[in-house]
Amino acid sequence: MNVYNYPDLQNSTELLTRPTAQTSAEVSAQTTEILRQVRLSGDEALARYSKELDGVSLTSFKVSEKAIQESENELSADLKVAIQVAYRNIQTFHRTQLRTEERIDTMPGVTCWRKNVPISRVGVYIPGGSAPLFSTVLMLGIPAQLAGCQEVILCTPPQKDGTVHPAIRYCAQLCGIQKLFALGGAHAIAAMAYGTKTVPQVSKIFGPGNTWVTSAKQLVSLDGVAIDLPAGPSEVCVIADASANPGFVAADLLSQAEHGPDSQVMLITDSPDVASGVLRALAAQTAALPRQQLVQEALQNSRLLLIQDIPTALQWANLYAPEHLILAVENPEQWVDKVENAGSVFLGHYTPESAGDYASGTNHALPTNGYARGYSGVSVDSFVKKITFQQITPSGLRQLASTIEQMADAEGLQAHANAVRIRVNTL
Amino acid sequence: MNVYNYPDLQNSTELLTRPTAQTSAEVSAQTTEILRQVRLSGDEALARYSKELDGVSLTSFKVSEKAIQESENELSADLKVAIQVAYRNIQTFHRTQLRTEERIDTMPGVTCWRKNVPISRVGVYIPGGSAPLFSTVLMLGIPAQLAGCQEVILCTPPQKDGTVHPAIRYCAQLCGIQKLFALGGAHAIAAMAYGTKTVPQVSKIFGPGNTWVTSAKQLVSLDGVAIDLPAGPSEVCVIADASANPGFVAADLLSQAEHGPDSQVMLITDSPDVASGVLRALAAQTAALPRQQLVQEALQNSRLLLIQDIPTALQWANLYAPEHLILAVENPEQWVDKVENAGSVFLGHYTPESAGDYASGTNHALPTNGYARGYSGVSVDSFVKKITFQQITPSGLRQLASTIEQMADAEGLQAHANAVRIRVNTL
Repeated sequence: MNVYNYPDLQNSTELLTRPTAQTSAEVSAQTTEILRQVRLSGDEALARYSKELDGVSLTSFKVSEKAIQESENELSADLKVAIQVAYRNIQTFHRTQLRTEERIDTMPGVTCWRKNVPISRVGVYIPGGSAPLFSTVLMLGIPAQLAGCQEVILCTPPQKDGTVHPAIRYCAQLCGIQKLFALGGAHAIAAMAYGTKTVPQVSKIFGPGNTWVTSAKQLVSLDGVAIDLPAGPSEVCVIADASANPGFVAADLLSQAEHGPDSQVMLITDSPDVASGVLRALAAQTAALPRQQLVQEALQNSRLLLIQDIPTALQWANLYAPEHLILAVENPEQWVDKVENAGSVFLGHYTPESAGDYASGTNHALPTNGYARGYSGVSVDSFVKKITFQQITPSGLRQLASTIEQMADAEGLQAHANAVRIRVNTL
Repeated sequence: MNVYNYPDLQNSTELLTRPTAQTSAEVSAQTTEILRQVRLSGDEALARYSKELDGVSLTSFKVSEKAIQESENELSADLKVAIQVAYRNIQTFHRTQLRTEERIDTMPGVTCWRKNVPISRVGVYIPGGSAPLFSTVLMLGIPAQLAGCQEVILCTPPQKDGTVHPAIRYCAQLCGIQKLFALGGAHAIAAMAYGTKTVPQVSKIFGPGNTWVTSAKQLVSLDGVAIDLPAGPSEVCVIADASANPGFVAADLLSQAEHGPDSQVMLITDSPDVASGVLRALAAQTAALPRQQLVQEALQNSRLLLIQDIPTALQWANLYAPEHLILAVENPEQWVDKVENAGSVFLGHYTPESAGDYASGTNHALPTNGYARGYSGVSVDSFVKKITFQQITPSGLRQLASTIEQMADAEGLQAHANAVRIRVNTL
């Protein structure tokens, strides 16, 4: 943890730089080649890459219906209950995002409205490298289900024995996902973006992944396939005042640091006592963690800013635009309206980020790497298109006619004006 | 117009192919170099490109406050009234998109909500090549204003004399946009994406443009700057039954064809009489248009499908996913729920697309090139981030604890579980 005492906001850039490496030209070239191969030879290329990159030879990538159904026999009762509770909370929160919009008469006879229409076919990528991230299946599958997407395609890397982890199958089943493929990496993204004989082509791809997966998502987005978010390493920023419990704060920082050596955590506090208490607690708690080595690397990228007061802390946090922001302060509600840039915000001393990661109900697919300045996290909105409709009566058109004609003429677009004139002339 | 009689839906791909050229490697290389130069030498690079590409030498790109204020003396009274009517309608429609969301207790003591927070600084690009597209200023400026964006930066190519067209200045003033820059092309996108001494850096860039502008928007999006939509040539699909007026339909097709030689228009009808009537009307109306040459080129890319019935027409239209869809049929409302993929839909015989282009109230910044499968048009939503918040009480956390711990342990993320345990242990 690098400590900075009362740093100057004018020189924030350096202090807020992320450790993220840009996608290297090498990764980008490798991914481009993978995409090309999958477009060219489809399933055959998928088989080749699965063998080459995952060390798995599969006769079929498709996970059978039976394997999906049997997943519930392969999990402990406790884990199933936990997943069901999380499912229910996530569903409860996301359900409120469904919306029927009203029709508006912008003028008499001119009626306009928006309609939320599900994206018919979406793709979900679930990483499975060091751990099966089944919670992400819920975070993407539930809003897709609520939005009413007709088909959800899920790709996830096969385990060494070629199967997909039962918790991923179980969560998929809860979310009504029927098309699961044991496919990981850039070739899985390529398969969903362009379609193969086995894997259907989708219109939007969701989900986190490693550098190759991220690079592939970016590249296919240039071909018009929508993507949820540009992904980067996970991060948390904790703002703590003197009321904060240093042990809690340290635990929150470590819960992000354990994601990987390129994760970044930041503590901003106006209390020198909390600062030193957190540093001590970090050392003590890290020693007890299985992923100790990795956590220590992440902490080397990480920062503790001692600042004057909480308003200053919020200025720093808004400049940093963290994925997760924890307000470990007294009366946190008073600061809600000061939050400009963050993915998801956690208020008070008993709201750890891991609650939102798993089970409180909010989504954990969030903008990292400062993208919270311009992007939102995943929600039901991410799975629908908002199509506008309008209907104009003859008298409504007569009333609008001169406005349209004046503007079209001034833009030099006579045929636009004609489309109105030819109609009004018949009235 | 290429005519196809009763084509087979199974072989739709070829018939629905767009004439769009992919961004060529050459354009991409040129744009990459422009971005690099602007990052490297800022305003100096902007001045160089303005001279080289626009043939304009400016001492300052910034349009003065005076020039913005004086715009109202440079427009006809009629055009100003037209712009004001359009402004009001667009504002009326978009205002309904503002939304305060409710707080949800997903469990007792677990409160979650979303808040719409404006993107602080956004950039708007307005093309000005052959015509000043001031209507686009309204389409982007009004939702930005409603969303409450603190700063809107507008870039538009200078006219030959170095000034910005008064209608663009006037619309900007109506929308409260104070930072106008006479800058066009890829270097304008670079300036907004990375910031220069003169042009502030923004978090999201909106607006259409030529191949270089589009390429620049795509490239800066790889650096984490959000963009509204991948842009492509404009397009319309008209579905017409026997009740349609061939003259109206032809006028609608021409209003898109006049955008450029790469525009594509499509007519799908179940009426042979309407088909032949539209072909005759196209010939007659084209002869009277100033942009005749350009329109004829666009029509060469364009298609007329004679099909069995309106449900089949909708299947074709959904596969095509047009930017604009006109339902020139009897009782068009009955088909609304069958529309899966379209940017904006126009119902009935008196709802020309140009109404939505200018003044009915809906937005004209829409997904082209089939992107309507996965993307929505611009709305107030495009100018806000939806930040999630949550607050958990000690008893709420106690209730959630085992769920979070079970899931975190199963994902191998012990520090996530610890962040909960350490708190619950104090209760």
